[in-house]
Amino acid sequence: MILRDKNKNLLIEETQISELAKQFGTPIYAYSEKQIRKNIQSLKTSLSKHFEKFQILYAIKANSNPHILRIFQEEGLGADCSCEGEIFIAEKLGFSMKDSIYTANYQLEEDLARASQKGIILNLDDYNQLDELCKISKPEIISFRINPGIGRGGFEGIVTGGTDAKFGFPYEETEKAYRKALDLGIKRFGIHMMTGSNNLEPFYFAEITQKIMTIAGESLSKLGIQLEFVDIGGGFGIPYTENESEIDLDLTFKLTSDAFYEGVKKYSLGNPKLIVEPGRFLVGNAGVLISQVTHVKQTYKRFAGLDAGMSTLLRPSLYEAYHKILIDRKSEQNEKYFLTGQICENSDIHPQEREMPNLEQGDLAVITDVGAYGFVMSSHYNHRPKPAEILVSGKNVKLIRRAETLEDIWQKIEA
Amino acid sequence: MILRDKNKNLLIEETQISELAKQFGTPIYAYSEKQIRKNIQSLKTSLSKHFEKFQILYAIKANSNPHILRIFQEEGLGADCSCEGEIFIAEKLGFSMKDSIYTANYQLEEDLARASQKGIILNLDDYNQLDELCKISKPEIISFRINPGIGRGGFEGIVTGGTDAKFGFPYEETEKAYRKALDLGIKRFGIHMMTGSNNLEPFYFAEITQKIMTIAGESLSKLGIQLEFVDIGGGFGIPYTENESEIDLDLTFKLTSDAFYEGVKKYSLGNPKLIVEPGRFLVGNAGVLISQVTHVKQTYKRFAGLDAGMSTLLRPSLYEAYHKILIDRKSEQNEKYFLTGQICENSDIHPQEREMPNLEQGDLAVITDVGAYGFVMSSHYNHRPKPAEILVSGKNVKLIRRAETLEDIWQKIEA
Repeated sequence: MILRDKNKNLLIEETQISELAKQFGTPIYAYSEKQIRKNIQSLKTSLSKHFEKFQILYAIKANSNPHILRIFQEEGLGADCSCEGEIFIAEKLGFSMKDSIYTANYQLEEDLARASQKGIILNLDDYNQLDELCKISKPEIISFRINPGIGRGGFEGIVTGGTDAKFGFPYEETEKAYRKALDLGIKRFGIHMMTGSNNLEPFYFAEITQKIMTIAGESLSKLGIQLEFVDIGGGFGIPYTENESEIDLDLTFKLTSDAFYEGVKKYSLGNPKLIVEPGRFLVGNAGVLISQVTHVKQTYKRFAGLDAGMSTLLRPSLYEAYHKILIDRKSEQNEKYFLTGQICENSDIHPQEREMPNLEQGDLAVITDVGAYGFVMSSHYNHRPKPAEILVSGKNVKLIRRAETLEDIWQKIEA
Repeated sequence: MILRDKNKNLLIEETQISELAKQFGTPIYAYSEKQIRKNIQSLKTSLSKHFEKFQILYAIKANSNPHILRIFQEEGLGADCSCEGEIFIAEKLGFSMKDSIYTANYQLEEDLARASQKGIILNLDDYNQLDELCKISKPEIISFRINPGIGRGGFEGIVTGGTDAKFGFPYEETEKAYRKALDLGIKRFGIHMMTGSNNLEPFYFAEITQKIMTIAGESLSKLGIQLEFVDIGGGFGIPYTENESEIDLDLTFKLTSDAFYEGVKKYSLGNPKLIVEPGRFLVGNAGVLISQVTHVKQTYKRFAGLDAGMSTLLRPSLYEAYHKILIDRKSEQNEKYFLTGQICENSDIHPQEREMPNLEQGDLAVITDVGAYGFVMSSHYNHRPKPAEILVSGKNVKLIRRAETLEDIWQKIEA
């Protein structure tokens, strides 16, 4: 998403990053509207080539800035909500509730019922909650989150299927779950599976789709249930490192479609639509964190400090996640550095020694691919205010969240 | 800190935890004022037994609630500040700047100078910043953060000395650093070392003290420098697991004192005071996170969901940190559980399967020893408001930070 012009200046769309830093200060999250719309379009194009009926739900947890959410809402996407707070903002933004899905985990039945009454489709993490839920309010349509017993993800913490996963219930209980729903008088159904995040391999998506179709088919055909949707979740990855390539969406949905329609036909599952719930794929590569080199130090190793640390971007500390870091500078000489934030903690560091242009105080360091799980995981650790966010559209730049000040976070702590 | 009365109800001081949950809701951070004051007292007592002159600086980053800070200020402690924001709040609370120390890392010289002008003592992470700093504003007194080339901590991320550490500069350059300060006309000096966090072993503190005295002595005696203070940092641990015991403070400071005075005498370092910078030790065991069991699920494993997850308490996800969890319930039967939050992410889980009383929805689960690095690392991930904090003193309970609402964090995100 980041370009270099002929003078080697870094650009987002048509705007120089150095101009953004000058105008808004650092650290700052900057997003490209064009990139977000392009991501949506490429997903829609690939899906429409291979699926008769499909729906894209944006996973709000990835980036919940309202101006970003508005783009998804304008593009006709539904909302994938993981908790009450996300439903709250989806409603504020005008997402259609009946085109959105609520996949909570370990939620109280009364909270699930309250959500259901707003019209959002419930995707239940545990079918054993259904009795209690129906006592309060019977949903018109229900989906279940099935754990297929397998999972895969970019790191251990984002594997969401398999026997260690806290999500869903074992696929062996699928029939029992839907039978219970039938017994309780529910007549409309979907099914859901989400086994891991940040996968780049088309065959993986084909595999889980085949798995969910088989699980659905074997169980539901006995019950005469037809599905309104099959939701394969998100998990569509983006290349974070120099060695990875973009996911081949066309192949992904070609293979997925084969598995999908074969299952539908084999098990007479009706005429379901495919639902996908991307977050990272839609917004991850559209965001950068612009930071400034504050100091370079040669000790036992060579460190360069940035004004964005683990309070601003947690992924490197939490997952040892790798983000490419670009320097807005024309130095011809390269040197090796460990890049760190200013937080008083040694886990505040980017993984791997990086070779980059000779760094100097004041250089701009652009941390890429932070549009998803960036700002939303930020904290006030070390009493640091959260940074601003801006949205770039061509030459237009809009401040979509102002930076907090020390006074802001101080005021907040007076009870 | 948590007691059980004769009916097995859980108490903080004289207040039932179930009453707190009823009055304030869950999740909520609750602190015992008595425990905090007891921690301060035990530290003062041990130190005064073995040191002629000493000073305790509270590490603000551990817990920066102003009402908690006020206790430390009342007890005469100085502030250990790691960044500008912490100086800002230390000043608001009336901490004496000249009795406080600023240990930043990778900070701009102009920011260091601004802090120095407020009168706080600078403990420089890199002596190479001294020239630039003195051009802006020459400090009256200076300390340096020395990396002794070794370090130890409870987890890798909190080891702050050694060749991988981003902090301080190599001890081999100590003489050069102080010579530069002398050349620049600085006449008053301290020295600092902080090599790791959460250590429980008295001999460890003796070892680093001996190390710093030797490093200081070998370098500074050549320069005729006498020290006003030797700051051995914090790192005093607390027992998080059932198998650990409290640190033997008396032995710790007995051994530390031997190393300290032997060094002072051997190298004629003057009449320095000892400075310590505890955070975790003073407040860690004084805080609990009261949460509620929201749902129990038997899948491939048995999970119990809590309404406090990684957005409320990050340590289990970030470090796989173990916190004891007590259940406010009298069930005689035990069962094994994995305890998880409600965040849509598989890293939102407490390490290790726990044997605990048979859990039911609505049970109160009290996560212990979260007074330090608890609330301060919380986030709004999954659009979750931050919880309230309360301070318990005997039968008195004070709301020291109100819980955020969904509206609060929504308002904040409109630019």
